[in-house]
Amino acid sequence: MKISSRQNPWFKRIREAIREHAGEIVIEGPKAVSDAIAAGWTPIKVVTRDVDFSSEIFDVLAETKSPQNVIGLFERPRVSIGALFGRETSIVIALDGVQDPGNVGTIVRLAAAFDANGIALLPGCADAFGPKAIRASAGAILTVPVVSCTAEELLAFGWPIVAADTRAEIADPPFRRAILAFGREGSGLSPEIAKAARTIAIGMSHGMESLNVASAAAILLARSYAQR
Amino acid sequence: MKISSRQNPWFKRIREAIREHAGEIVIEGPKAVSDAIAAGWTPIKVVTRDVDFSSEIFDVLAETKSPQNVIGLFERPRVSIGALFGRETSIVIALDGVQDPGNVGTIVRLAAAFDANGIALLPGCADAFGPKAIRASAGAILTVPVVSCTAEELLAFGWPIVAADTRAEIADPPFRRAILAFGREGSGLSPEIAKAARTIAIGMSHGMESLNVASAAAILLARSYAQR
Repeated sequence: MKISSRQNPWFKRIREAIREHAGEIVIEGPKAVSDAIAAGWTPIKVVTRDVDFSSEIFDVLAETKSPQNVIGLFERPRVSIGALFGRETSIVIALDGVQDPGNVGTIVRLAAAFDANGIALLPGCADAFGPKAIRASAGAILTVPVVSCTAEELLAFGWPIVAADTRAEIADPPFRRAILAFGREGSGLSPEIAKAARTIAIGMSHGMESLNVASAAAILLARSYAQR
Repeated sequence: MKISSRQNPWFKRIREAIREHAGEIVIEGPKAVSDAIAAGWTPIKVVTRDVDFSSEIFDVLAETKSPQNVIGLFERPRVSIGALFGRETSIVIALDGVQDPGNVGTIVRLAAAFDANGIALLPGCADAFGPKAIRASAGAILTVPVVSCTAEELLAFGWPIVAADTRAEIADPPFRRAILAFGREGSGLSPEIAKAARTIAIGMSHGMESLNVASAAAILLARSYAQR
């Protein structure tokens, strides 16, 4: 029977997951939902517009302008931080206070393109599982391990940490057994990371210009990958 | 006298410029407005919240969530295409059907960071002078020459054109007297550009992943600049 009431418990639970993206995550569109299932995400409920939910209440939930007819409710994937350090032939990306979800999602996509072990989200970052970040990741969120952790937890594995900083000397980024960290534009790195990190810069005109954090990540991850 | 009517001609003209960004462009915030004047843009009208316009009607116009108290109406800067080819020691960036204004603005910022001559916007691109693109440019729109033109006009200057294409061979981008072109994600380059261009790729994992167009531009522009 088609559900058309906003009081329906599934409607309320999906709406809650969209608002909070806490323990449960919503994915939109038939391809994205089937890709998530194929990637091993645990589906809780899949609803189709005009079949499970009336078009009226489905469209209340749909995030994108062109509704995609299928919404999937999934358990948030839980990856242990150890998974980021399982392979010594590549690097870990750490994001430190990167607040814009589009930048977080773009860097998830870069992690897939340049075969990083995964991403550590330090405090103050946008959620990689929010709708904007998921869209910007272009599907990479399904395969790239993403872990929220503290600087202390991240550094406990003993890998050296290298951070992008426009005031540093220009140098090549590491390409194996290292953490490559990117801070918030403007205010930069948190004190714990700044204290532990060696800093490197990207060669730019006048040394005065700055880059968007996802642009800086693109350049350094491509350079890291090219050295393998 | 403080203007509080939505029928006021200045209110209507600024609102029109925000909607259409045709011959006149709106810049928000005291720093951005003074930077635009310093960069030589022609101001038509500058209005301050609660001084020139009542806060009620000012807030109707303000684009950003935290209103910045000053809005400037400017003539759209007009740069002739010849300005892009005035210096043979750098390159021209061409965008071909890049529809997302955030990507266009990010690439304007990259052009400043890596000292490109300027940007040619081929048909199908988002306007570089729209509010989202201006914000993403982080001020670079004030100094980077941006010209809308056709493929024919662009190629008439006789500079070789090199385009990013994931299916091509990996190669270094040019760093002087060349056009570096980026197409729409997915559908790629328009036929006129594809026919004229040599294509190069960025080395990536599996050769299967793709990059956001601004990420691809970041990597190739940084590599181009590093060769100078």
